[in-house]
Amino acid sequence: MTIYKAPLDDLRFALFDVLGAERTLTALQGGEAHSRDLLDAVLEEAGRLSEQLLAPTNAPADAEGCHFDKATQTVTTPKGFKEAFKAFAEGGWTGLTNPEAYGGQALPGVLGTATTEIFQSGNLAWSLYPLLSEGATHAMELHGEEWQRERFMKPIVAGRWTGTMCLTEPQAGSDLGLLKTRAEPAAADADGHAVYKISGTKIFISAGEHDLAENIVHLVLARLPDAPEGSRGISMFIVPKFKLDADGSPGARNTVAAGAIEHKMGIHACSTCVMNFDGAEGYLIGKPHKGLAAMFTMMNAARLSVGVQGLALAERALQNSLNYARERLQSRSLSGPKFPDKPADNLLVQPDVRRMLLTQRAFVEGSRALVLYTALQTDIEHRATDEAARQKAGELVAFLIPIAKGMTTELAQECTKEALQIYGGHGYIAENGMEQFVRDARIITLYEGTTGIQAADLLGRKILQLQGVGAKHFLQEISAFCQQHSADESLRGLIGPLAVATKEWSDLTVSLAQRTQANPEELGAAATDYLYYSGYVTLAYLWVRSVAAAEAGTQSAAFKQAKRDTAAFYFARILPRTLVHKAAIEAGVKTLPEIA
Amino acid sequence: MTIYKAPLDDLRFALFDVLGAERTLTALQGGEAHSRDLLDAVLEEAGRLSEQLLAPTNAPADAEGCHFDKATQTVTTPKGFKEAFKAFAEGGWTGLTNPEAYGGQALPGVLGTATTEIFQSGNLAWSLYPLLSEGATHAMELHGEEWQRERFMKPIVAGRWTGTMCLTEPQAGSDLGLLKTRAEPAAADADGHAVYKISGTKIFISAGEHDLAENIVHLVLARLPDAPEGSRGISMFIVPKFKLDADGSPGARNTVAAGAIEHKMGIHACSTCVMNFDGAEGYLIGKPHKGLAAMFTMMNAARLSVGVQGLALAERALQNSLNYARERLQSRSLSGPKFPDKPADNLLVQPDVRRMLLTQRAFVEGSRALVLYTALQTDIEHRATDEAARQKAGELVAFLIPIAKGMTTELAQECTKEALQIYGGHGYIAENGMEQFVRDARIITLYEGTTGIQAADLLGRKILQLQGVGAKHFLQEISAFCQQHSADESLRGLIGPLAVATKEWSDLTVSLAQRTQANPEELGAAATDYLYYSGYVTLAYLWVRSVAAAEAGTQSAAFKQAKRDTAAFYFARILPRTLVHKAAIEAGVKTLPEIA
Repeated sequence: MTIYKAPLDDLRFALFDVLGAERTLTALQGGEAHSRDLLDAVLEEAGRLSEQLLAPTNAPADAEGCHFDKATQTVTTPKGFKEAFKAFAEGGWTGLTNPEAYGGQALPGVLGTATTEIFQSGNLAWSLYPLLSEGATHAMELHGEEWQRERFMKPIVAGRWTGTMCLTEPQAGSDLGLLKTRAEPAAADADGHAVYKISGTKIFISAGEHDLAENIVHLVLARLPDAPEGSRGISMFIVPKFKLDADGSPGARNTVAAGAIEHKMGIHACSTCVMNFDGAEGYLIGKPHKGLAAMFTMMNAARLSVGVQGLALAERALQNSLNYARERLQSRSLSGPKFPDKPADNLLVQPDVRRMLLTQRAFVEGSRALVLYTALQTDIEHRATDEAARQKAGELVAFLIPIAKGMTTELAQECTKEALQIYGGHGYIAENGMEQFVRDARIITLYEGTTGIQAADLLGRKILQLQGVGAKHFLQEISAFCQQHSADESLRGLIGPLAVATKEWSDLTVSLAQRTQANPEELGAAATDYLYYSGYVTLAYLWVRSVAAAEAGTQSAAFKQAKRDTAAFYFARILPRTLVHKAAIEAGVKTLPEIA
Repeated sequence: MTIYKAPLDDLRFALFDVLGAERTLTALQGGEAHSRDLLDAVLEEAGRLSEQLLAPTNAPADAEGCHFDKATQTVTTPKGFKEAFKAFAEGGWTGLTNPEAYGGQALPGVLGTATTEIFQSGNLAWSLYPLLSEGATHAMELHGEEWQRERFMKPIVAGRWTGTMCLTEPQAGSDLGLLKTRAEPAAADADGHAVYKISGTKIFISAGEHDLAENIVHLVLARLPDAPEGSRGISMFIVPKFKLDADGSPGARNTVAAGAIEHKMGIHACSTCVMNFDGAEGYLIGKPHKGLAAMFTMMNAARLSVGVQGLALAERALQNSLNYARERLQSRSLSGPKFPDKPADNLLVQPDVRRMLLTQRAFVEGSRALVLYTALQTDIEHRATDEAARQKAGELVAFLIPIAKGMTTELAQECTKEALQIYGGHGYIAENGMEQFVRDARIITLYEGTTGIQAADLLGRKILQLQGVGAKHFLQEISAFCQQHSADESLRGLIGPLAVATKEWSDLTVSLAQRTQANPEELGAAATDYLYYSGYVTLAYLWVRSVAAAEAGTQSAAFKQAKRDTAAFYFARILPRTLVHKAAIEAGVKTLPEIA
């Protein structure tokens, strides 16, 4: 049985002290009411819900899993899921960041990111049901017609229905251009809206079928009859599980159904479905053949949320491994007994155990700052009063998303591994709960684009195609910060190395851009190492900002000392990893020759 | 469903070309018949058995798991396990390396290591049953009395019985000094042998109870009534599941029984038991209070075998991910279509996929060379005609074991992770088999001493206490190799960096020894990074030897090119990791401050 307590102090610190979110948010359009007090109250309420209703279900729901009934093609979710989802919907969480016009609360995206962390820590598998809905409402908000939003988005915002994203097919994963699902025009419906009949098989559909909601709205990628080949011939459709009656309530069953659920390494409690569309009726959303572009506008939000999953799992794993290291008595300190009245010292006296804990802490808090920073830029992108500010924030977001997703999910692999390792053999035993974090974490470097896809997006699209416009903003911001704080006594030993790393990052980016233009294979040979390199420097920047914020803050001396210690640890023992990635980048594609 | 084909070419290459095992083995006492032909035949036969009887059971046995019947306190192993164990025993594999006097075949330990890899790749969980027996026979061979060997060891060598090692207790894991199990003297048995009654609870007992053999011989650590506290008061006892009749056959049930089996992250098919000893009758083996020392003489062999497990899992994961990368069609090469007549190119055209494959290949083949090198030294230690050669080999083995165990098991985490990653989302699906490798691999950095324990053994005992005598031999060997091959054109670009890294390793060792003497906490702060540092340089050495061996060998041009490519990859992209570990070592304990 694992513990979980929402890390409210650290969330507040990151939001308000490090990122100055209150100042930023209250200056945005519609943000007048988004004071620290309001946000604080929402965080506390999210903490209560997660601690009380979600966290206790995490292990039992993993053991129980989802059950698929072949005869009725229905999925039963684990015990407690319905109750938690009901409470979640009644609390208004399903519409936290949606516009008020559709029943949402129009709260800032960065607050949604923070509460998503809390819910995902409570139960990642459970949190995927509302998460997929978010993607669907987002797509309808951006690309749907008003009647579509009225009929399909509002009930999701209200928490009565949920949504899915149906992209992957057996032969089409990372390469959606290969997808085969077809959409044939059919007779219009009673209201005169054009209807399409969708046929094909989709796999890996999270929350594709379940018992938490009255209806499920699938957003499906498919090809129209006149579609060009490849990724330019993909359109997006709204396909509800139950077709709607005249009053908008769920009516006749549509011909879309789950054919099976997958047996997976982890997130057992998430219903991952094979979905069969057999002439299922749906509506085109957005323009014909522009489905992939529409899907990609959702993708940023989805990728950021998956990054948050890494943080969420790592946070809970850290809480438990720290707790275990405090309580487990084994062996004596190398410099003599520290608890002479006990049969042995606790694990915390071992420097190697502290190394594993500090690694987790550095990554968890660094990742949190990164995803919240990115989310706050999203708010600026959407609601700044100044057009130039909106554009700059959008460019920053586009640049940071692959780092936030790729880096945070990979670091979560290391964090959950180290957390388990601290338990020794007991970490391998299911009832202690640590191995579930490792299993659950393993999906996050795969879905919503593998780490390789994030890396290709970062280097190929964000740096090369978009000429590194987001990177330039970010590097300038770091340089400005370094200059501003160059004489800051409290940041001694941090600003210098950060400035050096930032300069090196900039140089590396320029030389890499030149090299990949000469030989596109160099892009693939460097991308993942460039992603890591970028990630480690980004976290270094955010750690220095954290130390600066702690210095200026009103927290306890112990809190501030922990930030200084973790930052010093990060700079001494983690940041040197950039050396390895630099070497790999410079080694180039010639060190990755053909394999027969 | 995963594939497995015993990597006989690579095993032969490592054994005969890289390590020159034939020349070494045939010069040892009793080694006259250990020709390459004989060893080859044994490898082939092991390959057949593993491919045909073990490999197909791997996934189904994981799904089925072991079943514990509470009423009878018995364990049923998965389908196929009994048949495989019967074939294994009938093939003489249970006594492969045991002395002929006890029914063994007295074949070299290095051959046992090579065949163990093959069997563990086939089914790791299954392979733990005979592996634990090996430890038990080894202990009886070294520490038992002749009658004990006759009665308890011979049936295990014959494959009729199995053995266990009962060390861990709930409060005593890494720190066996805390163990509480008691041994009380009782009336002697009919033959006049002193009997002890053992009482206590042991946990994490692999193969503690199962249905593969007629009897199970537990080697149990316990305290005699007059035992000193801590690790100096531990004795070792032989406690059979069934007491022996006068003719040595299993008779009345002893009062030792499984109380439960653990539910674990992986190795589901291995029966991991809680064993309750309730006045169970047993015999002292070795001297009173010297049980821990006796146990540690077994430990080296056990730790090497666990290192082999890392290699074995990584080998099979690599075979499958390479196969998948060849067959999976997705996206196009960055430099234009490579399979224009197919809907997409295969994954092998992606440099990032090759990076993941080459990482696995570098680690798998490097690890194989490392464990076989160490095993060959064990043969020299036990059977060289020259006393000095035996001593030197023993010192090398002591030095290399924590590296072989610690490094190979940690690298297996990375290998199995990358192998799964290549499958994308399909890697997360149980039926594709890749996630089982990750789950199974997660135990090996924990049991037989965690990585932290290996690191402390390496730096604290092998370097500091034993004054680095084994390290000196090894570093001298590498230096001599570098000098000998300094003008070797085929090793250009490798010898130079190897010599530099070796010199740096030597310097680091000396400075670290000084620093830890001044402050013992520095040992704990540096140990794990020193282990990694040592491991990466060791693999670099073995990779250069592999290239040299390939150059001189009779293999195909493609085989030789693959060795050169992988070595070049290793030096360019992996060896720089030593920079990070050096930075961490030099950062010292001040970067690992107290955690409240």
